[in-house]
Order: sequence, then structure tokens, then C-alpha cells
Amino acid sequence: MGIVVQKFGGSSVADAQKIINIAKRIIETYDEGNKVVVVVSAQGDTTDALIEKAKEISSKPPKREMDMLLSTGEQISISLLAMAIAELGYKSVSLTGAQVGIKTSKEYSNARIETIEGGRLIRELDAGNIVIVAGFQGIDSEDNITTLGRGGSDTTAVALAVALDADRCEIFTDVDGIYTADPRIVEDATKLDDISYDEMIELASLGARVLHNRAVELAKKYNVNLVVRSSMNKNSGTIVRGLSDMEKMVVRGVAHDYDIGQISVIGVPDIPGMAFKLFKLLADEDINVDIILQSTSRDATRDISFTVAKSNLERSISIIEENLDLLGAKRVTNTDDIAKVSIVGAGMVGNPGVACMMFEALADVGVNIYMISTSEIKISCLIGPEDVERAIGAIHEKFKLGC
Amino acid sequence: MGIVVQKFGGSSVADAQKIINIAKRIIETYDEGNKVVVVVSAQGDTTDALIEKAKEISSKPPKREMDMLLSTGEQISISLLAMAIAELGYKSVSLTGAQVGIKTSKEYSNARIETIEGGRLIRELDAGNIVIVAGFQGIDSEDNITTLGRGGSDTTAVALAVALDADRCEIFTDVDGIYTADPRIVEDATKLDDISYDEMIELASLGARVLHNRAVELAKKYNVNLVVRSSMNKNSGTIVRGLSDMEKMVVRGVAHDYDIGQISVIGVPDIPGMAFKLFKLLADEDINVDIILQSTSRDATRDISFTVAKSNLERSISIIEENLDLLGAKRVTNTDDIAKVSIVGAGMVGNPGVACMMFEALADVGVNIYMISTSEIKISCLIGPEDVERAIGAIHEKFKLGC
Repeated sequence: MGIVVQKFGGSSVADAQKIINIAKRIIETYDEGNKVVVVVSAQGDTTDALIEKAKEISSKPPKREMDMLLSTGEQISISLLAMAIAELGYKSVSLTGAQVGIKTSKEYSNARIETIEGGRLIRELDAGNIVIVAGFQGIDSEDNITTLGRGGSDTTAVALAVALDADRCEIFTDVDGIYTADPRIVEDATKLDDISYDEMIELASLGARVLHNRAVELAKKYNVNLVVRSSMNKNSGTIVRGLSDMEKMVVRGVAHDYDIGQISVIGVPDIPGMAFKLFKLLADEDINVDIILQSTSRDATRDISFTVAKSNLERSISIIEENLDLLGAKRVTNTDDIAKVSIVGAGMVGNPGVACMMFEALADVGVNIYMISTSEIKISCLIGPEDVERAIGAIHEKFKLGC
Repeated sequence: MGIVVQKFGGSSVADAQKIINIAKRIIETYDEGNKVVVVVSAQGDTTDALIEKAKEISSKPPKREMDMLLSTGEQISISLLAMAIAELGYKSVSLTGAQVGIKTSKEYSNARIETIEGGRLIRELDAGNIVIVAGFQGIDSEDNITTLGRGGSDTTAVALAVALDADRCEIFTDVDGIYTADPRIVEDATKLDDISYDEMIELASLGARVLHNRAVELAKKYNVNLVVRSSMNKNSGTIVRGLSDMEKMVVRGVAHDYDIGQISVIGVPDIPGMAFKLFKLLADEDINVDIILQSTSRDATRDISFTVAKSNLERSISIIEENLDLLGAKRVTNTDDIAKVSIVGAGMVGNPGVACMMFEALADVGVNIYMISTSEIKISCLIGPEDVERAIGAIHEKFKLGC
């Protein structure tokens, strides 16, 4: 009898009918002879409503208390889902992060899972229960409630799969799996049957927001059998695993992202340590930086350009402006009139012609490229937002990703 | 430096402004040099909204999962109140029942507090924190979340006062304290400066629903200095304590209750054990019975009459009707067109004339009495609901309870 971990997001538990639907889905897996552990997020808008309550009281509430507040969202979901399963005649028990023994670091609102005790989980599974676990939350070494931040529920699911040595971890979502491109933009985008952890990480960070990177990284580390599939049909989904099939096309998919802003710090002295100083300032404020480009030296100074999420653009600029003297830089420029298209594939590193093919595809349809960044398994280009759809279509066709 | 436990109910934390108001009130107590522990209930309608969510999924949800669900209500309140206190510049920390170590029995939805670990509480107080504790909840020996049922938050407050050997336990409410009669009905009703635990218990169970009996009983057992006072002014409230002043009037107050239904079981065989059988049936369903009267034997049968809360009337009748054979009884009658007025006072037992004065007061204003029940410190009469106001006024005047 194997163990299956299933994760359902907030939209899957948004109302009573949806909860009953996924309860039925969970029971099918149980009836197939599996021990089932289910991770759920907070219902639809619950988290936003709770944040609103906090805002009415404090503009900067203590993070510990925010975690105390927000963790109730998942607690509501798990109890309702356990009720739905019981109503269908099956044994079920809901457990909070504290009750499971999900021990985390002390960074409220952005804690990392350190260990999972698991004893209670195994006892409940052995007693024949379908176990419903609150995603996104844990406790620190002093029993304070913590939340895991972005991608928290996905990460909880994968971490439980690791702790229980589960046969597979299924992430349910509203699409059939991972596609070669966004099917809303590219008509003949096709679903991938499998993809490697690394490719998935690049695709996720590039805007294919089906599965959070943190969870994929954890799955990669422990070689968890991860499946992304739809909660609305029985299709097999996409398996995320260690190695992709060498015989397959080099380029696996095209991703795009509108949610970026570009910042250029102009006239940074050409001496060692400046990049460190700059990005330390941003890291200290928990701002993730994506593409970084440093110009060649000119008049003993360089320009450093990088991209951040649009929501971090203003804050990044003011942090840098406050520290222009420290950096010895001249000024900061920025734009949010920018987007990113990328191709991802594990085999690209051994195929030097791939980048060239991508640039050719963009040139064919007259798309101007502002910045280029490459890694072993991806190539990203910054282009104008108005060019994105044209760019994706051209790349998808050039690499014959359609079915 | 003494310890003060303060309890605020759901209406006191109903919205952001109210939460900020009580935060200020709490800080005043802290600034007077006290260590302060605050117990709060769920916000206004939160509990009802959660119950509604459960009902949409199951007509009879497992009690364990209901407790998991409902306990989020208090968890939301405590985090918001801690945020409000922090916003005012004071150190505060919120704790769930589990975090405080409030260990209870396993009866979900109606658990009893067994022990309070208290170590965490004391550490937080010693660190200078105002500690906000979720009322109404605890955990059983297996870390399952339990709720305490009716009067749960009052009981949490008193139990914490016991565990911490607090100087006093203040129950904040929307009235100034305990009155000689309902001030909305009797114009010259006066606030009592003090009242004994036993008198308070009788007054509370008789409809003066300011403070739950369970909490008063616990306070009595451990001799807790209990104060009932208004959250809206600084008046001193009513102290509930061991002994009332012997010099004071024998009768302390007049209570009334519209929320009762009367049931009569007709023709119960006059053999031992019948009353036990009858009330066991109701006790098994958690139905509280108030006044019980058994008629003298007639044709080898008796009639047993008793009262229950209106909300339990229908259920009680159907339980008894299903078991008429078991009881050997002929039939059941009932009415909800009934109310109760009572006088309460610790000295009544030594003053045989008191009952007579009460009946005289009722006779003076032409009120018919359907049932009479007496105990050492109270006398209750069932009368028509339409007679209640007249009855209370006459009794209040007869015993000169006005100022």
C-alpha cells in the first residue's frame, strides 16, 4: 500500500461544492488502495480578507502576529475538507502544521521547513484515516506559528512526500500540466508528458506559474516523483522528474513574463565589490533579482542593469537612490514597459545553434531585443510587452514545439 | 507587581475600532504596574459564519472538525488585538490554547479544562509582554484542538487567573455590573457592589447572563477575585467573592428568564428509578434541565414536570415520545408560553418569611403562579410571559431593592 500526497490550491476549496468535489477525487485515490495525505491552501479570498483586517489595525503589523492570523485560513480549509470526506462516509482527520510537527525556521512570513516529525501522520494513516494537512504553515522551536511564504503549500506537499517517502506527490491545478507555451497565446501549444526538475524550475520562474520553484527544488533534492495535473479531469498530467528523455527536442518550452521591471544603475565605479554592495542592499529587503547584466567598463565606470518583479520596482529604486553615495553611482533609471520571453531545455548547453535560432525567430517577426541572458538550460530576451505574443508564436513554430 | 487577567467578549472585538479601544484599556492596566493577561472571544459574527460554512458541507459534521474550525475565530481575535497593542507601542504576544498549554478533556465542543501548563505564559509576562490568550479553546492529551462550549471564554479567564495566582480576574461586558433586577425593566434597579459566588450562580442561571456559571463555579472553587465591569467606562463594577455582607438585605436581586419551555410527562409508574430513566435520556443528549417537579402519586402513577431552554424543547419532546414505552408513561404535554421570575440571596435559607413575601408581591399585582421551586438561596416561580415585567417590579419594590 503506497502513500500518495495530493495538494489542492485555494481555488479548489473556494466554496462548499468545490470542497465536496475534491473530497470525491481524494476518496477515489484512497479506494485505489493508497494511503492519502492531502495538503490544502486557504479558501479563495480568505487570506486577502484576513490581510484586510490586519491593515485596518496596523500599517506594519508584527510578522509573528500576521502568521498567527493568516494560518487560520488553512485551518478553516482543512476542517471543512475533513467534514466533506466524513460526510461521504470515509474516515478523515485534519491536522495543523503544529499538529503534524512541521518544524520551521523562525523567519515569520517566510519560514523554511527544517524537519517534519511525522509520527502523528503515520499513526493517523495507519488508523485508516485520510489525513488533511494545513499547507503553508509550521511552528518554530518555541511553538510559535510560522508561515512559509510564497509557494508554501506546494512546499508543504513535497516536504510531506519526502518525510513519508511517498510514492508520488500530485499538485492539482486548473490546467492539464506543463505546456510548451501558454495555450491561451499559442494555439498549438502541447502538454509535456514529462519534464526535468531543472527545466521546470526555469519554466516556473519564467512565468509558467503552475508549481512553485521552492517546491520543485525540494523535490529535486530528494528525487520526489512530482506530478502536475488538473483537478477537473483525469488526464495524466506532467511528471516532473530527474532526467528528461534525451531523444526529445532540445527546447522543451517557451515561457513569458509580463511581471518585470528593469532598473539600471548608471556609472558604478569599476572597482571590486560594487555588485555585491548593490545586491546586498536588495537582498536585505527580501527583493529577488532576476536577470543581471553588467556593461563593459567605460570611463572607469560600469552600468549594472537588472530586473525585479513589478511589485518590487518602486521599493528597489528608492533603496538604491538612498544609497547612491555608498555605491558611488551617478543615477538610476528604470522602466516597467518591458517583458521577457525565454526558451528552456536541458539539452541546450550542448547545442550552440539554439540561441541563434531564437534570435532568428524574433528577427523574422521584427521583434527588437533589449537585453539577453543565458544559462545552461535557458535563454531569455527582454522585449517590448506589445511584442510578446508575436515572439512566442514565432519561437514555438521555429522549434516545432506544436504537436 | 501583580497579575491581572482581563476577559473581553466577542462584541468588544467586533471591529478594528473596538479592538483599538480595548487595546488602550488594556494598556492602562499595564501602565498601572500590572502584568496583564487578556482573554478574548471570537469577533462578533465570526463563529456563526464558520458554523454556516460547516452546514453547507455536512448536516452533522464531526465534532473534532467543528472544534478545529471554530477555534480559528479566537485565533483571529488574538492576533488582531496583539497587533493593536503593538501599534500603540507596547510589547504584546498572542497565544492559542495549545501554545498556553490549556489541557482539556476529550469531549469535543464541550471540553473541560484539566490543567494549564503556564510556563510559556510566565516567560512571556516576565519578558514584559502583554499576553493575549485565545478563550474557549484548549488541546487534549493528543494535541487535538478542543473547544470548551458555553461560557468557554469566561472559564478560560478564570482558569488562567487560578493558574497564575492572579490578583484579580476582570470580566468586561456591556453593563456596569450585576443589578438587583434588569434595569431595562425595573427603573430603580441598582448595581450591587458585591455578590457571593453562590448568589451569582443563581442569578446567572436565572437569566442575568453577564457571567457564565461554569466560570463562577471555578472562581468559587479557587476563591478567585472576580470582577464584572463595563468595557465602556471606568466604574468599579461588581465584585464576586466568597461571602456577602451579612448586614445587607437578605434578597440580593430579582432575575427573570423568557427562554424556557415546560414539559410534563403524564402517568409515569410510581416505582423507583423512573426519574433517573427520564433524565438520563436527556442528559445523554446534553440537554440541561432546570426546574423539576414531581406530583404526588395518583392511581399508582405520577406526573413529572420540568423546564428546558426553548431551543431544546422540541428535541426533548421527541426523545421522550420515542421512549414512552421505556418510561411506561402515558403521554407528554408541553408549552413555551411560560417564563420564570426568581429571587436570589444567600441569607434566604434562614428567613422563612421570604418566600411568603414573594408570593404576596405576585398576588398584589394579580400574577398567577404555575410552578414553584426553591433552593437554599433562590425561589423561582413560573408565570405567564405577559406577567413578567409586572412581577419583577412588584418583587423589587416589596424587598426594597431600589436605591
